[in-house]
Amino acid sequence: MGGSWVAGKIFSEVYSGKPVSLVDSYELPEFVSKSTLVIAISYSGNTEETVGLAKQAAQKKAHVVTISSGGMLPEYGNQKIIIPRSDLQPRSATGYMIMPILYGFGLAKEEDVRHARTALEALDKDNAQCLGHAKTIAHRELIPVIYGSSPFKSMAYRWKTQFNENSKIMAYSNYFPELNHNDTLPLAQTYRKDGFYFFVFGSDNPKISKRISVTAEITKTKFNMIEPKGSSYLERMFYMLHYGDYVSYHLGLLRNVDPADVSLIGAMKKALS
Amino acid sequence: MGGSWVAGKIFSEVYSGKPVSLVDSYELPEFVSKSTLVIAISYSGNTEETVGLAKQAAQKKAHVVTISSGGMLPEYGNQKIIIPRSDLQPRSATGYMIMPILYGFGLAKEEDVRHARTALEALDKDNAQCLGHAKTIAHRELIPVIYGSSPFKSMAYRWKTQFNENSKIMAYSNYFPELNHNDTLPLAQTYRKDGFYFFVFGSDNPKISKRISVTAEITKTKFNMIEPKGSSYLERMFYMLHYGDYVSYHLGLLRNVDPADVSLIGAMKKALS
Repeated sequence: MGGSWVAGKIFSEVYSGKPVSLVDSYELPEFVSKSTLVIAISYSGNTEETVGLAKQAAQKKAHVVTISSGGMLPEYGNQKIIIPRSDLQPRSATGYMIMPILYGFGLAKEEDVRHARTALEALDKDNAQCLGHAKTIAHRELIPVIYGSSPFKSMAYRWKTQFNENSKIMAYSNYFPELNHNDTLPLAQTYRKDGFYFFVFGSDNPKISKRISVTAEITKTKFNMIEPKGSSYLERMFYMLHYGDYVSYHLGLLRNVDPADVSLIGAMKKALS
Repeated sequence: MGGSWVAGKIFSEVYSGKPVSLVDSYELPEFVSKSTLVIAISYSGNTEETVGLAKQAAQKKAHVVTISSGGMLPEYGNQKIIIPRSDLQPRSATGYMIMPILYGFGLAKEEDVRHARTALEALDKDNAQCLGHAKTIAHRELIPVIYGSSPFKSMAYRWKTQFNENSKIMAYSNYFPELNHNDTLPLAQTYRKDGFYFFVFGSDNPKISKRISVTAEITKTKFNMIEPKGSSYLERMFYMLHYGDYVSYHLGLLRNVDPADVSLIGAMKKALS
């Protein structure tokens, strides 16, 4: 769920060697058996839904790998990956949650990790572009809509959730080419269009690239393009992740809300328990 | 893609006997082999993405089932299901596309189909409630946000796409419990909240039901509840589908747009070809 769910989404989008099912409800799929690998991710290790699912998986004798900073989750793991810090917001620990999976499935190389780190440090030094987007959004009180495409469909969703949690504003995501089958007509004809701010991730797939420019033109929409930078998937992925984090973080500050404050979620969990 | 994609989404949400991977991009997952069942759905049978995927699946000797009203798609099918009408909008043919799959996997009984039909006919006779929602939305030019939960997460997405295509307005969907990890803070603190209209599908899962009421209370949000009616999943599913269709249809008419008009999509396909 939440910040941990995003790690699963990112992985499932880039790994296609075996079928991957994402589970974000209370029930484990029926097909789970002793020949299933179940990866249970919860930063705190105490997320109600995830702990319940891991328990079900253990009962079905699946091979369970847990990723958490502690909590009850490891109790159900055949392999337990413990994140060395437990003082972060789950959404700030995405790197800790996604890297063991990418490594484990051979999707990350040492060299790419070094490049990714350099890219992130560069963005830490200069994120004026991120602040620029945040200023426009804050000034006009806009609702961000983020359009991604493979391999960054989940990344568009990640941005949405970061605007939700860091900036405390509504935000929505969608992706090409599917959005051409639904969002296209409203982009041309909806009311309240000037209340939205459209981020679009650049793509090196020429088919997607053409769809982006044709959609902008036909619907007369201003797309604020964000180009993934980097020489490997891993570098581009972390660059995009960090970029979105900065936009939503700056926007929170500009709105005078505390990006880290999630006390309302705490109140809700209390009311639910 | 589009209306056909929704049929796949609905199926994958209720079937958990085997892993189901939804594909909505240009590339077939790597794991597809001769022991994979590939169901390729395109109402026209000529959707670029779907035809390309079916071709790849046939090359990999997967067992391909095609569902279409004709077109190029059946060429790649080991089993070809032909929809008897080719004069509909894809999104109006959801029943034709979902029923062969639900039947094939033993998820629909004759008796449930009869009940579903009766429920739909009742809604055809009296859909004043749907019109009521549409009037409020049209009058205040609101953006619908639809919150579902299992087994109607995909249905919330279906409603979104129907508002997009029939009413030509922006709309968004999300689902419980996941939305408690992202939309909750903005529901309490976002700007422009009075520009949205929140539909929430009722749930007979007490955990979800409690989440809905706690979320509404803590965030001080007016949830317009839609209760799924019917004695079986199939009846409730079609009831919800039809209900959303009517709201979006009425809303299109109230906005003086033609719900059936998709000429812009045609223009886009031309620009892309």
